[in-house]
Amino acid sequence: MKIRQVRVTPVAVRNPPLLNNGGLYNPYTVRSIIEVEADNGLIGLGETFGDKLVLDRLSSVREHLVGLSPFDLNALRRLTQTQAPHPGSEAFRFLPGSWNGNPTDAKIFGAFEVAFLDLQARHLGIPLCELLGGAVRQEVPFSAYLFFKYGTDYARKVDADYAEHDPWGEVLNVEQLVGEARRMIDLYGFRSIKVKAGILTPDQDVACIKALRKAFPDHPLRLDTNGGWSQDTARRMAEQLAGDLEYYEDPTPGLGGMADLHLATGLPLATNMVVTDFDEFRRNITVNGVQVILSDHHYWGGLRATQQLAHLCEMFDIGLSMHSNCHLGISLMVMTHIAAATPNLSYACDTHYPWFTEDLLLDGRVPIKDGNVAVRDLPGIGVELDRRALAELHQQYLRCGSHGRDDAAQMRKFKPDWERKKPRF
Amino acid sequence: MKIRQVRVTPVAVRNPPLLNNGGLYNPYTVRSIIEVEADNGLIGLGETFGDKLVLDRLSSVREHLVGLSPFDLNALRRLTQTQAPHPGSEAFRFLPGSWNGNPTDAKIFGAFEVAFLDLQARHLGIPLCELLGGAVRQEVPFSAYLFFKYGTDYARKVDADYAEHDPWGEVLNVEQLVGEARRMIDLYGFRSIKVKAGILTPDQDVACIKALRKAFPDHPLRLDTNGGWSQDTARRMAEQLAGDLEYYEDPTPGLGGMADLHLATGLPLATNMVVTDFDEFRRNITVNGVQVILSDHHYWGGLRATQQLAHLCEMFDIGLSMHSNCHLGISLMVMTHIAAATPNLSYACDTHYPWFTEDLLLDGRVPIKDGNVAVRDLPGIGVELDRRALAELHQQYLRCGSHGRDDAAQMRKFKPDWERKKPRF
Repeated sequence: MKIRQVRVTPVAVRNPPLLNNGGLYNPYTVRSIIEVEADNGLIGLGETFGDKLVLDRLSSVREHLVGLSPFDLNALRRLTQTQAPHPGSEAFRFLPGSWNGNPTDAKIFGAFEVAFLDLQARHLGIPLCELLGGAVRQEVPFSAYLFFKYGTDYARKVDADYAEHDPWGEVLNVEQLVGEARRMIDLYGFRSIKVKAGILTPDQDVACIKALRKAFPDHPLRLDTNGGWSQDTARRMAEQLAGDLEYYEDPTPGLGGMADLHLATGLPLATNMVVTDFDEFRRNITVNGVQVILSDHHYWGGLRATQQLAHLCEMFDIGLSMHSNCHLGISLMVMTHIAAATPNLSYACDTHYPWFTEDLLLDGRVPIKDGNVAVRDLPGIGVELDRRALAELHQQYLRCGSHGRDDAAQMRKFKPDWERKKPRF
Repeated sequence: MKIRQVRVTPVAVRNPPLLNNGGLYNPYTVRSIIEVEADNGLIGLGETFGDKLVLDRLSSVREHLVGLSPFDLNALRRLTQTQAPHPGSEAFRFLPGSWNGNPTDAKIFGAFEVAFLDLQARHLGIPLCELLGGAVRQEVPFSAYLFFKYGTDYARKVDADYAEHDPWGEVLNVEQLVGEARRMIDLYGFRSIKVKAGILTPDQDVACIKALRKAFPDHPLRLDTNGGWSQDTARRMAEQLAGDLEYYEDPTPGLGGMADLHLATGLPLATNMVVTDFDEFRRNITVNGVQVILSDHHYWGGLRATQQLAHLCEMFDIGLSMHSNCHLGISLMVMTHIAAATPNLSYACDTHYPWFTEDLLLDGRVPIKDGNVAVRDLPGIGVELDRRALAELHQQYLRCGSHGRDDAAQMRKFKPDWERKKPRF
């Protein structure tokens, strides 16, 4: 089996006006959809960031893959490293690989690797999780991912590109957040909750956790400020939060800051910001900055790299959870399969999926029931691309004019004086 | 594809009277040959230690594998851990997992995992190295593995079980060792040389290295005393050896001793004795005891574990070489395939293979040309089992009465006062 053709199609999907410590989500999220077609007609699917520099680099590697065996991951790595050095790579050296626009080797390799592995599994006629070592769970738990947000009526006055209707309304205080949680749990049955915090004041964020604890006494809770709190604030809040949190995610910036906080509080700290590649993992074991790592195959370098990360977490007694990448259904299924085949991925995974209404799968959106996504007994990731939807979302990409995520610029449309600050509080 | 039957057959092959710091090789080496047969008639092959406790544990896991998918490595791991706790495991907790007779989980899992992966590759009709991520080299270099040894005429007087003829003769001094090297390089074309030392005095060992350096000026040299030298001796010899060695393998016992020696000498130290599992790897990065690890899929836990080890070595800037496991042709081909697919396995691999005259492959012995073993463009490991030879070597196992390796006991047949000592010099 050889690769006959590789397609990389940028798409845009509508995003509601969700807030985070780094700003406001654009009205559109851009993604790259990857199709690796073999000479037997089978197609492996992948999905990754659609930001311009990533897309450019994916496109320039793409043509070199024709003629390869989809099993030859070493050749894929070599081609990624040698055939398409990205222009201006120096400029990206000091940016985290997890940043959407940074076209690292791991990100480009991983994007194709997923599609190669999906193609391998389809060729074998087995589910991707079986190829990855066998499912230890058929249903993978995900968490309710709560955001503070503007109501669409308000947001559209500033940026008419937001969709006309968004059923979630405005969420800017404790009561509204509990309402959002209830709606999301009613719809999907999630059994754990993550709050994207660092927008309201720290005291209000703590009040949110207390209110959620009361409303959902059995749901593990997570709080993520994206490094929004100073060391002092994070320590002060830790005193109030101790006992309420499953883990405390990126409360304060930097690996050193996390290490100080853990030493002072003993709370388990989690990250998708300060340990995002294997070099940072190595640094972390020296300083014990974080005790839970949120994996993300999109920037760790694909699924075998995620398995290497899982093995490292086992070796070094570090917990393993999963980050959400503003993904559509293809990535949701990939996440589900790798989670199903990873015994020590023992926390519910994060997912942004409920915030999107559009997708590009033949059977419609991926169902989430009782908070779980099930692996299906079908070849590969178990879903097929709807070419009409792909074409429509590609047209939307061309129409919308967005070439990537810039939450700070978007926020300044609403608050011209708004500044990106880490920590903010 | 499901597993229909699993066979584990102990075999014995003749071994010449080779010496090492731990004693003398028995006249027979025992190995377990593993066949995992699928419901489509394909058979995956594996080979591992044949020592009684390993064999017993392989046999008790074996029956539980029927009905599994050969892709389900997670189920294989679970079964290994739960279905067959080996009796007296407490007794083995403080023994190295690399010791032939210690039936660790990694060893039992790895033995079957190799056969599962071979079966996967045969099912796909691709070479094992392609399944493992693609060959980065088609020819894998091995090193000439020199041993001091008794001549067979002498050895047979003490133990008549040694074969009647052994073309290598007695090797107990510098000249004889250079002669052995010349013969082995003439026969197989090896382009690097490893000396199993710690039998003669340290000064004589150094003299051997100097003589080999002169006789083979372009061949990288390695010296392995199996922890036979004290810290003082190892430092003294290091002064004389500096510049002559590619690496200095297990010169002195213990990870702490190796760390002290490296700090004192700066020489790259290699091991297959003090970093033999992932826990020991973790300890090593704290103390910087060794800078080159000799992988061995037989006790590291199979081929995916070997890839994890390779990744760790890359992460932590540690060199990667490969240990020889007194193996026959099946394991030689497995070693060749994993080495072919591992970019950072950048040293020639060790192999004991030239010391055996018997094997159980349909096409005869695996050829070694210009010091290389080639991967073949055939499914799986690319060799087939000769069932007649298997039956004969199994009969030899039953006849010979050996149930494992005990070099010290064998040595005492020749020198009743001989003691196992580490360090010896």
